[in-house]
Amino acid sequence: LVRREVTRILTRGVIVDPDKLAAKEANFLAAAIWQGRKWGIALAELSTGDFRLTEGQNLEAMWEELYRLRPVELLLPNSCQTEDFSVSFAWLNPSPSLQYRSGEDFHLEAATRRLQRHLGTLFLDGFGLAGYSLGLQAAGAILCYLEENRTGTPRHLTSLIPYAQSDYLGLDEATIRNLEIFENFRTRSRPNSLLDIVDSTQTPMGGRKLAQWLRYPLKQLTAIQERLAVVSFYKEQSLLRQKWRDLLKGLVDLERLTARIVLEQATPRDLIALKNSLAQLPALRCLLPPELPPLAANLAAELEDLTDVHDAIKAALRPEPPLSIKEGGIFQEGYNTELDELISLTRRDKDWIARLEAREKELTGIGSLKVRYNKVFGYYLEVSKANLHLVPEYFIRKQTLVNAERFITAELKEYESRLLGAEEARKDLELQLFQELRRQIGQEAARLKKVADALATLDVLAALADIAARRQYACPRLQEGRGIRIVQGRHPVIEQVLPPGGFVPNDIDLNDRATLMIVTGPNMAGKSTILRQVALIALMAQIGSFVPAAAADIGVVDRIFTRVGAVDDIGRGQSTFLVEMHETANILHQATPRSLVVLDEIGRGTSTFDGLSLAWAVAEYLHDLAGEGVLTLFATHYHELTALSRLKPRVHNLQVAVAEASGDIVFLHQLRPGAANKSYGIQVARLAGVPAPVIARAQEVLENIEAGTLDQVGF
Amino acid sequence: LVRREVTRILTRGVIVDPDKLAAKEANFLAAAIWQGRKWGIALAELSTGDFRLTEGQNLEAMWEELYRLRPVELLLPNSCQTEDFSVSFAWLNPSPSLQYRSGEDFHLEAATRRLQRHLGTLFLDGFGLAGYSLGLQAAGAILCYLEENRTGTPRHLTSLIPYAQSDYLGLDEATIRNLEIFENFRTRSRPNSLLDIVDSTQTPMGGRKLAQWLRYPLKQLTAIQERLAVVSFYKEQSLLRQKWRDLLKGLVDLERLTARIVLEQATPRDLIALKNSLAQLPALRCLLPPELPPLAANLAAELEDLTDVHDAIKAALRPEPPLSIKEGGIFQEGYNTELDELISLTRRDKDWIARLEAREKELTGIGSLKVRYNKVFGYYLEVSKANLHLVPEYFIRKQTLVNAERFITAELKEYESRLLGAEEARKDLELQLFQELRRQIGQEAARLKKVADALATLDVLAALADIAARRQYACPRLQEGRGIRIVQGRHPVIEQVLPPGGFVPNDIDLNDRATLMIVTGPNMAGKSTILRQVALIALMAQIGSFVPAAAADIGVVDRIFTRVGAVDDIGRGQSTFLVEMHETANILHQATPRSLVVLDEIGRGTSTFDGLSLAWAVAEYLHDLAGEGVLTLFATHYHELTALSRLKPRVHNLQVAVAEASGDIVFLHQLRPGAANKSYGIQVARLAGVPAPVIARAQEVLENIEAGTLDQVGF
Repeated sequence: LVRREVTRILTRGVIVDPDKLAAKEANFLAAAIWQGRKWGIALAELSTGDFRLTEGQNLEAMWEELYRLRPVELLLPNSCQTEDFSVSFAWLNPSPSLQYRSGEDFHLEAATRRLQRHLGTLFLDGFGLAGYSLGLQAAGAILCYLEENRTGTPRHLTSLIPYAQSDYLGLDEATIRNLEIFENFRTRSRPNSLLDIVDSTQTPMGGRKLAQWLRYPLKQLTAIQERLAVVSFYKEQSLLRQKWRDLLKGLVDLERLTARIVLEQATPRDLIALKNSLAQLPALRCLLPPELPPLAANLAAELEDLTDVHDAIKAALRPEPPLSIKEGGIFQEGYNTELDELISLTRRDKDWIARLEAREKELTGIGSLKVRYNKVFGYYLEVSKANLHLVPEYFIRKQTLVNAERFITAELKEYESRLLGAEEARKDLELQLFQELRRQIGQEAARLKKVADALATLDVLAALADIAARRQYACPRLQEGRGIRIVQGRHPVIEQVLPPGGFVPNDIDLNDRATLMIVTGPNMAGKSTILRQVALIALMAQIGSFVPAAAADIGVVDRIFTRVGAVDDIGRGQSTFLVEMHETANILHQATPRSLVVLDEIGRGTSTFDGLSLAWAVAEYLHDLAGEGVLTLFATHYHELTALSRLKPRVHNLQVAVAEASGDIVFLHQLRPGAANKSYGIQVARLAGVPAPVIARAQEVLENIEAGTLDQVGF
Repeated sequence: LVRREVTRILTRGVIVDPDKLAAKEANFLAAAIWQGRKWGIALAELSTGDFRLTEGQNLEAMWEELYRLRPVELLLPNSCQTEDFSVSFAWLNPSPSLQYRSGEDFHLEAATRRLQRHLGTLFLDGFGLAGYSLGLQAAGAILCYLEENRTGTPRHLTSLIPYAQSDYLGLDEATIRNLEIFENFRTRSRPNSLLDIVDSTQTPMGGRKLAQWLRYPLKQLTAIQERLAVVSFYKEQSLLRQKWRDLLKGLVDLERLTARIVLEQATPRDLIALKNSLAQLPALRCLLPPELPPLAANLAAELEDLTDVHDAIKAALRPEPPLSIKEGGIFQEGYNTELDELISLTRRDKDWIARLEAREKELTGIGSLKVRYNKVFGYYLEVSKANLHLVPEYFIRKQTLVNAERFITAELKEYESRLLGAEEARKDLELQLFQELRRQIGQEAARLKKVADALATLDVLAALADIAARRQYACPRLQEGRGIRIVQGRHPVIEQVLPPGGFVPNDIDLNDRATLMIVTGPNMAGKSTILRQVALIALMAQIGSFVPAAAADIGVVDRIFTRVGAVDDIGRGQSTFLVEMHETANILHQATPRSLVVLDEIGRGTSTFDGLSLAWAVAEYLHDLAGEGVLTLFATHYHELTALSRLKPRVHNLQVAVAEASGDIVFLHQLRPGAANKSYGIQVARLAGVPAPVIARAQEVLENIEAGTLDQVGF
């Protein structure tokens, strides 16, 4: 009976095996703790070495941050176990696995000591961590968890970086979901999400970086403009861009490979892959000309060749080593004297055995004598029955077959035993040498990470340029002032789903004199699409991307809010309408004059008059907020709302145009000034295949309603 | 360089590794083919040996069948590749991976020959397959695919069973989704689905069987009543049930284990697990008394003890064999003479080596002499420096250490080499014996499957009884006549989510004189829940389950249709309203007087008057259908629809009751006769946290609307 010790407990947050991770997705292990309304969150991406923390002052923001991060695993103090957080997270897909940990793991002093030891410093201030406490406690809990999980010392978590939620554009869970930034709403998967459509990065680390940018769009004008300058540069330099991207394509996932090296999980083939990728660095550097924009120039400066690492691997390993680290055959000859000796020993003994057949044939005169090998007896001499009389005395009989007998000689067994011994010794030595080499390269993790990060960023910027060039995106003009003016804007995802030229672009102009747009128009005309595309264009601009439009002026937005078609959630016991009102309340409480609010069909889940009254009051509130109003797009079927434009100065009416031709409707998908006066619901029902008698009767009922005769008899 | 041949291509449909499968979920590999409007589908569950086919006359039904089956992998003829089916399947989660296969794989003659060969028969008629063609073609394509995948010969697909879609209650994709039968709508995962809540099966195969029953509820009265009789029996016999379920709990997944045995993937530990489970069969049979209801008695008759299989394993294998089949130690002594000899050889040589230390100590007088072993030199004698002068001549020096030297003797090396040889031979022999034993047990796959299937069915029936007993479910009275009468019905899922006693039960009575119920009432009052619970109770009754109600009379229903809260699907370019109308059109075209239709808020996605007109016409159509009407529950915010009860004989109005107390509303969740006159939307908005000024203004606007003064100035 073999007793096996559990050597690693592989929870989702500590996986680094590339076969078990999506290449372009982050795999966050997070920890959260709160006291009163203050909270701290820390997160570690063990497969890349990312290690960060943040803190805040109200719990809604903590939930928002957790929803935004989507950790695969979340550590919470034991004391939280009284509440059922699994319900709060069931929204997410996949929902994080919750690990309740002892309060001691989160203890401030212990956490501080643990972090000091891990980061190799006596003063956390050097990392900008002065003044943090709950965040440090969460970070300490993560380290504690990693130690317990025995994943190997995560030395590649080389620094702990604090960040502030307020530095980034605010995106709540509903908005991330409604705008389908990371996953399509219906399929709950990546295809046909914004990320999917704008991601043409060439490396896994670039893909993850782009996702991170979409998760945290910027608010600082200069930072956005720095990114845009590089995208513009790459857009114009199409040949350079193409060469750059072609070279990037061949790179391995440097970040995750480095992590596996540090965690002693990398194989010889991994190191060879690293070497081959590092060999591309000089060529990549040649593609970074001196006239680069500042951000790119800074990144280029971080891109060292890592020749020492490259050469160390090249000098050591064979170019095509085996998969296993236990079977030898990993190292080049000339790398290690002891190893060379063992190899030459083996070779000599093998030669001797190879020559034995000829020698013994000559000595014994047995022409059919053969030297063979099998697993049971090792090497042996086989002599056919006919020649047995020629067998000399020093042959020792081992086995009798039907037509032959098998023999060994003392000399043969001695060589064989020496050969096997040397081979074992060689395997052991190679294993040891490989572990040393891997540790030695692991020491360079910080440098490898820096290079990987610079490459990732330049990959994203060139990829955004590539998308911009291929799809005729425009460079947004960002400004400190308020307003969103888009000329010929398109929806980035739907434009790609439709055949070329099939998407009808539209203009929008939100500014201090026009903060609230009431959008009316029939079903299927595309109101929801137009609303979302405005939000998506603002979002894209603030990550530093070009945008699907002919031109766009974007005054930096502090938050984007959306309220679009909610779903019943019977498991949580909430009705559609309650969810809708929750999301609306959230917007009304948090929006500022610098926010962008997108409301689609507020008040649809209740009776007509109740819904209209609520929609009306919500619109007025957003218009009046702080005397300036909030930039708002408000789509509605309540045509009555268009009357607001006569009462409030900053309200404008827009309608989505439709043409009627002999009873049929043609959707023009064009936004025009003014209010719609018809919804064409019955025509849409006919298009959808509702039986003709039902359509005819609906038309009749409609005419009766309009004539005011329905209430009596329905005719 | 080691060349590795690809030995198996593991696509999702051919996985049988239990670590990669959800224990209680089917893993269907399906194939489909159509000509004109005729179609055939075949499906195989390689991990259980299930192999079936069906055919039909219109393509809508084919899509419905595929949506219902949810194959993980779908084979289609190459000629279909022109259409993009991935879009059609993106709805599903997970969506099946599509494999386009050569048309030849689907060729009728080749398929017939392939099936004859596989099933070992010259006449497929014996399997009831006379007259099938497209279905056979699909089945042939599956076999062809399995051959190519080299998964091992799937001999456990012992029969190919035809079934007819029309034998089962119709459930389209929207209804499966809306009723949350297999997954929660919001999380798209199993928790808080109907299946999750009613599944208390004790075995994996029982869990899969229950899912299959929910996927295919019955329409034949006698078949349903047979199941109900067993559930009733087990419900009453609570002690017997408890014992039965306790014993079942320990069983392994007999179906999937049998599959792995046939596919030569089972390990020695798998066989031991099989043996241990088979050992329970006699005890299980003792728990099947003679007075069982007919269905259970038939199943009991199928439950043989399989003593021969049990004994064959018991006689052969050690009770705790190693994981690997290559390392020996698998078989008992006494099982095989040759093996016993090898074992005794090994033992003798080991003994000899063990005694060597004492012997050589005595012979040489070296008190500190030790016999040791390492991987490089094998066994050796170690002598400390101080005693080197005592070393005899026949010691051969192998290695010098700081304080000792290591020696071998010719005799030691001879024993060692013999020992290693015997150990290798033993491993080889055990591997070979194990493969033989596994093949031999694989021959009994059909018997194992029959027992597994009987156990699965009895597991489900006892599990349904368990749920029924624990939750006070009632036995539904099924009947041929039309009508659904439920007394004190509850929603099976929400009842469980709420604290005990928190759910308010309700009555419903649909019959020939009352086919159409118009349900009005405020938001959050629970209209959607009540509608769904009626559909769920009918569905549960038709799988043979008790139902969450005090009493229920269910006239067998041919289809259940639902239209509940659609979601925008921008990726497919469809608006909410269009999806809603599509689903409505589908219902109007297919419903019969024996169907149950649940409509929740038809016409909400368009303007008020258009929506009301459509809702009105749809209600009339369902009322008038075939002069009998369809059993319909119609929830609406259009209070105007309640006027229908004055115009049409079979329309009844129901409202969900609410009490008002000093401006606050109290939801009573009670269904009462009559029409509601208020929606309480503004109150709900206040509950949801919409800011007070907005609420006050909405109230004001509402009063203005009701007073008819809004159009002018909004005051």
